[in-house]
Amino acid sequence: MRGLFLERGSLSLRDDLPEPVAPPGWSTVAVRRAGICATDQALARGYMGFCGVPGHEFVGEALDGPLRGRRVVGEINAGCGECERCRGGDSRHCATRTVLGIAGLGGAFAERIVLPDRNLLPVPDEVDDVAATFTEPLAAALHIADDVGAVAGREVLVAGDGKLGLLCALALAAGGARVTVAGRHPERAGLLPDDVSFRTGLLEDGAAPGSDRARFDLAVEATGSPQALPRLLPLVRPRGTIVLKTTTEAPTVVDLSGLVVDEQRLLGSRCGRFDVALSALARGAVAVAPLVAASYPLAEGAAAFARAAERGVLKVLLTFD
Amino acid sequence: MRGLFLERGSLSLRDDLPEPVAPPGWSTVAVRRAGICATDQALARGYMGFCGVPGHEFVGEALDGPLRGRRVVGEINAGCGECERCRGGDSRHCATRTVLGIAGLGGAFAERIVLPDRNLLPVPDEVDDVAATFTEPLAAALHIADDVGAVAGREVLVAGDGKLGLLCALALAAGGARVTVAGRHPERAGLLPDDVSFRTGLLEDGAAPGSDRARFDLAVEATGSPQALPRLLPLVRPRGTIVLKTTTEAPTVVDLSGLVVDEQRLLGSRCGRFDVALSALARGAVAVAPLVAASYPLAEGAAAFARAAERGVLKVLLTFD
Repeated sequence: MRGLFLERGSLSLRDDLPEPVAPPGWSTVAVRRAGICATDQALARGYMGFCGVPGHEFVGEALDGPLRGRRVVGEINAGCGECERCRGGDSRHCATRTVLGIAGLGGAFAERIVLPDRNLLPVPDEVDDVAATFTEPLAAALHIADDVGAVAGREVLVAGDGKLGLLCALALAAGGARVTVAGRHPERAGLLPDDVSFRTGLLEDGAAPGSDRARFDLAVEATGSPQALPRLLPLVRPRGTIVLKTTTEAPTVVDLSGLVVDEQRLLGSRCGRFDVALSALARGAVAVAPLVAASYPLAEGAAAFARAAERGVLKVLLTFD
Repeated sequence: MRGLFLERGSLSLRDDLPEPVAPPGWSTVAVRRAGICATDQALARGYMGFCGVPGHEFVGEALDGPLRGRRVVGEINAGCGECERCRGGDSRHCATRTVLGIAGLGGAFAERIVLPDRNLLPVPDEVDDVAATFTEPLAAALHIADDVGAVAGREVLVAGDGKLGLLCALALAAGGARVTVAGRHPERAGLLPDDVSFRTGLLEDGAAPGSDRARFDLAVEATGSPQALPRLLPLVRPRGTIVLKTTTEAPTVVDLSGLVVDEQRLLGSRCGRFDVALSALARGAVAVAPLVAASYPLAEGAAAFARAAERGVLKVLLTFD
């Protein structure tokens, strides 16, 4: 099988990857399209000492199992199916889970993958392959509403105008929030609805004007940088909430006294519900296609990663014949 | 008026302090007893550049106003009374509030103080003066249940066996939680109910055994040290909660990736409801008297602070003639 293999921070195209074998209750999926995300780029730089096939944003065709022949997307956490968490329906936090392309389970930058049957969802006809590859990150963005409740009418700051930041802004705006994006690429305002504000400089040291202090009900940290949180906290009102959507490779240095005094809440937030994301894509609530910068065939995977790493480049997709 | 005055990190007994004047809607209170808390000790070391009379844990007698002649305690945040937060009943987060003995309002280590009438509560006869001085910190400890909901039956770790940590453990145990205290003074286990576990070494680097990882539903940070949080996070289960009760003078250095991946919640938590605390004291639900290490008259305030700073000493009270 052909795919991109990552070992000791080096990515290579290989033709001799072992064919994944679906255990009972799992399905095999032929990947049709896959997206490169910031986590993949971090893994390629050596983060978490990852060794294997990366890739967890995909759309494919089920080759066997209950959805055989259907176009599918798949939740990336494969729980043990036995523990208390899995039995309670929360495989995302199973202590012995594997995670597609991230931990212990070969990922979607290869021709075929395997996932538990229960992880797969059929893709509605209204959602094309490009949009379907955004199901996983869009689910993560929409998950913010699971964390904090209804967002309609709330003043929300999204820190970061990268792929995930923009998806969070799109998801929150679709939910009726009054969104401000703090970013570094003003041209990206064009990717957002007209009623989303775009600000540069808001998270630079000492740059936030007094009128922005304690202004936001909710802030979403999607920069991937440990420098963002200390600058976000003063912009959030007392009893307000900060949702951390991205992990960082370096530790965060932060004075948490303000969080205590203002009784703010800091919520870690990761994967979301795929059915909610597919439904949003099917009704066109979130315009994801403009986020695609380029598509490359799998054979040009190294070039695709290089392109994704260029400054100012958003989503890069891999296509499979 | 006589009181302890703090200036540039130096505490002195003064006889010439200006008499505080109650504006309309405020009352004057003659202090009967006051407690020294870790915040006072930090202020005395220069924290926040405090200048004035410290002290915010007290019981006194109202000299005027609606509760004239009654024994009273008082909420320490004095809101403006005009802003949206104050009108909504949350003066604790009024942006222009003053705070008794902490910010802009002379504190209880002096013969008389003033507070808004609405801040004062009469002390039930069942609660003696010693117990009443614990109203403020006990309210803060009981506030954890406001933050996280019912604690009965939950596995809770309290980090810190200082004054506030012990009060948190007492409050949580009274609420039916299964409490473990991670502390450094094993002799303090004697101050806690028999069903509270006491552990030393749990928060030392690399000391937590595997069986403690992801064990607790809830952890309470009450050490006042920025080193505690990074060690607490792995002990809390996915989707579990960490409540930060103490501010720290130094910033926290922490890898928040685990918080994101495990979708944990970090909640800042400060002052609580005095009526809830008085009620708990009146029915004897929380035994606070054993936490008192010593009492000193106001004139020996410097000695009282010195005693409070000794290793292993819990609550030191000031008495007023």
